[in-house]
Amino acid sequence: MKRIGMLTSGGDCQALNAAMRGVVKTLLNNKEKAEIYGFLDGYKGLIYGKYRTLGGDDFSGILTKGGTILGSSRTPFKTIQDPDENGLNKVEAMKQNYKKLKLDCLVILGGNGTHKTANLLRQEGLNVVTLPKTIDNDLWGTDMTFGFQSAVDVATAAIDCIHTTAASHGRVFIVEVMGHKVGWLTLHAGMASGADIILLPEIPYDINKVIAKIEEREKKGSRFTIIAVAEGAISKQDASLSKKEYKKKLAEKIYPSVSYEVAAAIQEKTGREVRVTVPGHTQRGGSPCPYDRVFASRLGAEAGKLIMNGEYGFMVGIKDQEIVKVPLEEVAGKLKMVSPDASIVKEAKLLGICFGD
Amino acid sequence: MKRIGMLTSGGDCQALNAAMRGVVKTLLNNKEKAEIYGFLDGYKGLIYGKYRTLGGDDFSGILTKGGTILGSSRTPFKTIQDPDENGLNKVEAMKQNYKKLKLDCLVILGGNGTHKTANLLRQEGLNVVTLPKTIDNDLWGTDMTFGFQSAVDVATAAIDCIHTTAASHGRVFIVEVMGHKVGWLTLHAGMASGADIILLPEIPYDINKVIAKIEEREKKGSRFTIIAVAEGAISKQDASLSKKEYKKKLAEKIYPSVSYEVAAAIQEKTGREVRVTVPGHTQRGGSPCPYDRVFASRLGAEAGKLIMNGEYGFMVGIKDQEIVKVPLEEVAGKLKMVSPDASIVKEAKLLGICFGD
Amino acid sequence: MKRIGMLTSGGDCQALNAAMRGVVKTLLNNKEKAEIYGFLDGYKGLIYGKYRTLGGDDFSGILTKGGTILGSSRTPFKTIQDPDENGLNKVEAMKQNYKKLKLDCLVILGGNGTHKTANLLRQEGLNVVTLPKTIDNDLWGTDMTFGFQSAVDVATAAIDCIHTTAASHGRVFIVEVMGHKVGWLTLHAGMASGADIILLPEIPYDINKVIAKIEEREKKGSRFTIIAVAEGAISKQDASLSKKEYKKKLAEKIYPSVSYEVAAAIQEKTGREVRVTVPGHTQRGGSPCPYDRVFASRLGAEAGKLIMNGEYGFMVGIKDQEIVKVPLEEVAGKLKMVSPDASIVKEAKLLGICFGD
Amino acid sequence: MKRIGMLTSGGDCQALNAAMRGVVKTLLNNKEKAEIYGFLDGYKGLIYGKYRTLGGDDFSGILTKGGTILGSSRTPFKTIQDPDENGLNKVEAMKQNYKKLKLDCLVILGGNGTHKTANLLRQEGLNVVTLPKTIDNDLWGTDMTFGFQSAVDVATAAIDCIHTTAASHGRVFIVEVMGHKVGWLTLHAGMASGADIILLPEIPYDINKVIAKIEEREKKGSRFTIIAVAEGAISKQDASLSKKEYKKKLAEKIYPSVSYEVAAAIQEKTGREVRVTVPGHTQRGGSPCPYDRVFASRLGAEAGKLIMNGEYGFMVGIKDQEIVKVPLEEVAGKLKMVSPDASIVKEAKLLGICFGD
Repeated sequence: MKRIGMLTSGGDCQALNAAMRGVVKTLLNNKEKAEIYGFLDGYKGLIYGKYRTLGGDDFSGILTKGGTILGSSRTPFKTIQDPDENGLNKVEAMKQNYKKLKLDCLVILGGNGTHKTANLLRQEGLNVVTLPKTIDNDLWGTDMTFGFQSAVDVATAAIDCIHTTAASHGRVFIVEVMGHKVGWLTLHAGMASGADIILLPEIPYDINKVIAKIEEREKKGSRFTIIAVAEGAISKQDASLSKKEYKKKLAEKIYPSVSYEVAAAIQEKTGREVRVTVPGHTQRGGSPCPYDRVFASRLGAEAGKLIMNGEYGFMVGIKDQEIVKVPLEEVAGKLKMVSPDASIVKEAKLLGICFGD
Repeated sequence: MKRIGMLTSGGDCQALNAAMRGVVKTLLNNKEKAEIYGFLDGYKGLIYGKYRTLGGDDFSGILTKGGTILGSSRTPFKTIQDPDENGLNKVEAMKQNYKKLKLDCLVILGGNGTHKTANLLRQEGLNVVTLPKTIDNDLWGTDMTFGFQSAVDVATAAIDCIHTTAASHGRVFIVEVMGHKVGWLTLHAGMASGADIILLPEIPYDINKVIAKIEEREKKGSRFTIIAVAEGAISKQDASLSKKEYKKKLAEKIYPSVSYEVAAAIQEKTGREVRVTVPGHTQRGGSPCPYDRVFASRLGAEAGKLIMNGEYGFMVGIKDQEIVKVPLEEVAGKLKMVSPDASIVKEAKLLGICFGD
Repeated sequence: MKRIGMLTSGGDCQALNAAMRGVVKTLLNNKEKAEIYGFLDGYKGLIYGKYRTLGGDDFSGILTKGGTILGSSRTPFKTIQDPDENGLNKVEAMKQNYKKLKLDCLVILGGNGTHKTANLLRQEGLNVVTLPKTIDNDLWGTDMTFGFQSAVDVATAAIDCIHTTAASHGRVFIVEVMGHKVGWLTLHAGMASGADIILLPEIPYDINKVIAKIEEREKKGSRFTIIAVAEGAISKQDASLSKKEYKKKLAEKIYPSVSYEVAAAIQEKTGREVRVTVPGHTQRGGSPCPYDRVFASRLGAEAGKLIMNGEYGFMVGIKDQEIVKVPLEEVAGKLKMVSPDASIVKEAKLLGICFGD
Repeated sequence: MKRIGMLTSGGDCQALNAAMRGVVKTLLNNKEKAEIYGFLDGYKGLIYGKYRTLGGDDFSGILTKGGTILGSSRTPFKTIQDPDENGLNKVEAMKQNYKKLKLDCLVILGGNGTHKTANLLRQEGLNVVTLPKTIDNDLWGTDMTFGFQSAVDVATAAIDCIHTTAASHGRVFIVEVMGHKVGWLTLHAGMASGADIILLPEIPYDINKVIAKIEEREKKGSRFTIIAVAEGAISKQDASLSKKEYKKKLAEKIYPSVSYEVAAAIQEKTGREVRVTVPGHTQRGGSPCPYDRVFASRLGAEAGKLIMNGEYGFMVGIKDQEIVKVPLEEVAGKLKMVSPDASIVKEAKLLGICFGD
């Protein structure tokens, strides 16, 4: 009999439920007697001992359901070792709850921040298996994270809608896609929707090159331009600013985000009408796409297998189409970013997409 | 032989192409020889004589295509009789182009502003048939406008996505739905997506009632609340302000729109985390939904019939499921708003939806 | 306090859950104490006393969920008064279970057959409120039934997919749409997807006119033709046959359905390659479209109001955009069919759509 | 200046247009003067010299469009060297048309059969670059083919719809998914939609194991079962039959396909009601999914680069996330099948999915 704690941490995304269902189905279908403790709202649940015991029925019918049945929270764990406002040592509290429930292991689903904490718990002696969840696809050690392709689908659908209205009105349209630090989501959604210009955090842009592209399109007879801008895109000029300094700069001009700065610059320099659309949190919501359902189920199955084998301390990921286990210490704290020299960027440039560089 | 001018004016929406296809297919399939002059970018094309001659092929395959193949523009025609910046009398210019091309009639697709101008042209002696296009469903004289149901679908899909993430994080989420003057779109998208609170321009809200609803839900164990807010929603307190005064008030607090004012008030008074999402122009884009394709095709067919019969001066609309012709002078200048006493509002209240009144 | 029995009967469709949620939310939100007994699998549950007691939570989160949480069955009640195989008088059994549970009323969701039985129960003295559920839109007394628009969406999406492959290969494609007796679904899905030929049960077809249309299209340069065929479409020649005789005729030629007969005739007479696609039960499945969610919720709200007022013996429907109550005796046993002279059929013909008549 | 012939051959699929757009955009955006000859309806166009000259505009706006603007045909080229009915040597005819137009190369998009012919033309001295198109994902030498993920999406949506109706009625439902020789599409769509049983051509099934799974589910309280069956699934018993013999066997029992044989067996042995749904050609139609749009665009870009570099004789595919070129002789004539020992099959089994083996 295995006693398993499970939690989902960080911004939610599609296929979290599919992944958890995969773990639990695998255990139950393989005659592994398992007791599942679902901690509520991420690490908070583990710290404060809030959980529900879950059976097979709780995981039935959730393959296609967005969000997470356990709830999640974005607790900033920069100071995880420090006591909370009531003097509670959070790491210690998690360890105690783990022991109190006599858990055999924790299954933790999350992104970058989550993995840092998961690795810390591993170092503290807890048995941990993690699953790579994030719409950003920025986790090191896996070719893909679940949530990513679903988010690409949502963002692409938004830009598709913008396409018809932009074409009808002959406008420049900016669609701001999620991604503060990495641009995978913007890059893929931009390519999928035929964006003409794509601005990413990893490739600082020159506004003059952006404008040159708009004007080149106009010369060729295109009366509209679609620009996909990542939340964390940055101009060459501001690339050296700290995040805080840049935020301050935006605030001074009353720009809610970088997209509005880009819009204002184009409007000012060219007199063109520019509109901004921000699909925002819709990108992490809704039913997971078939790709993510298959992928998350496979990850869940392999995580279930690891648990049955008593193999802990791994993130389950995908490499070259095969599901693999990656030591947590290799994953934690690293970001998988878009290299300006990546083949996909070069291919996008071959297609005529402008990155403003 | 009929010589027909056609134009699409105002903000674009779904099924404009479907409607135009309906008109042209009807003419061509019924052996009516027709020459179609497609004026570009709305009334601008008629004023400045910019058009393309169109044949049956141009209308083939566009039933499912969003936007308008003719382009559109939101020319503010408050001063339509006044000369433009070059001294050109715009009304006169339209009449002259109409005569120069020896048109038998104009087919005009548009919303409220468009219909005012269309009626003016009718008064000036031009033959006009109009089709009711707007995602707002606020045209007087027709039960429905095309674009509306498609926009409901887009807005509902956005709120559906927000639903799963709101539930996962236990947050209050505001989704801002298009509609500056009327709330049909917000009302329908809100009801379709299970919004708990719906704020409309026609029903000024009391922020305390909004907060009371959130707290009532929390008491019952719901950890999240979805609020659908129309762009033109207004508090009871501000309902007496002019649009300009209210805009000024928002600007002073650096709120991009009313949703942010609502969000700030909730956050301030309750300490809850509130997020705002603005699907924006996506709501008028993308492929028309099947409902709109059928509806716009039917309208187009009846418009084609009117033209073959030489019956002019009408908007083609729908009443009690039948396509009808409505005299333009009865339509122009009137808005169809959501009455606070409408059955659908009462039904929404029966279901427990809070309007803040 | 109201004690309410609820059941869903007949082929399932989208928005059954939305409608039931509407009823229950209305009762609970308006301080009406209600005990809900959900009979399982349609009338069977009422006959054999199989039910679950349901609370508000059971109806939470099901607005967007297809199918029915109560289960359904297509019990052929032609002989409802006759005893079942164990000698049980079914009508009597239903009355006894109603009385045993001291019900105040039954809420019955179903289509034509269901309404006949519901009316019988009313005649037997039970309090009944019904809701018009069917993808066929063939219930008398209401402009619309829920499920219909969702089924139109599914069928249209299927024909949209067929469109691109038909165009690529230059083929004649037949898509068989649900509808044994009435053609509303085929008519709307056909118009929405740009079908060139639409064959309905109400308008017997002449295969030579179908072929003439295909050849006319070819002459004009169209290399493909899309035909939407209702399950119950029939040729002029066979229109006088009984359903049984026609089935026998099909079976002799080993045609699974009328579509294959049409396909064979076209292939034989013209040498063209014809393909048949049958979306089948997908048309009654999946999440309800926003239109149906709003509509079913409104119906549910008004049904809840009727129950609170103790008004029984009605179907809740829609007439001229308003939700209305219609005496059950007026509804039962009548079909709302597509008249060959209906405006929408004439409009479809204006657009060039061939009905084979 | 490059003179390029282009053709799409075999059953059409999603993203053919996206891939061709990628090639042409790459050439034109990189100042490569190119003349594009689009051969109509696959190899037929090349044999009989039917083509259109194409410019950049022809490839604008087609990224999201299903089908192929060039048309396709499934010419069985088993006897490609043999003369056609008029004595024309087809290979010779293709070579002559190639030379007559002074082509620098052919860009050929297709699946297995297409690649055999493409390799033959290469052997005959023509310059060829190919792109891997098929919903079957069965091309050797590439991890993925475009069209596959879009087809997974369509098939999954169909099974999702079936899920709600199956659950409501407590039925066994069989959905027949495309794939005569290989089961990738069925495997992925089945896993994505939570199918309980998946039958593939590569893993012959034992009907008793299928029935055992249905009964096991029933014992656990599941009142329905979803079975995803590939067109080419086969029982252990019939696995040794030739395709022709098996077809004959089906025909004798008047089963349109294997799904009906499975259905009849279950119905007969268990008395359960079983329904079959066949989404058919919808699986290769409709707009490509974002994944395929990005993937096909990348392939197109790299094909364009090969052409600019004068590198011929390759299929452009994907390996370990990188776009690669694979010598045509290595690709032609090989099938990439689902191994019964593949990790993904094992993972599916861990999840409790039954393959009937």
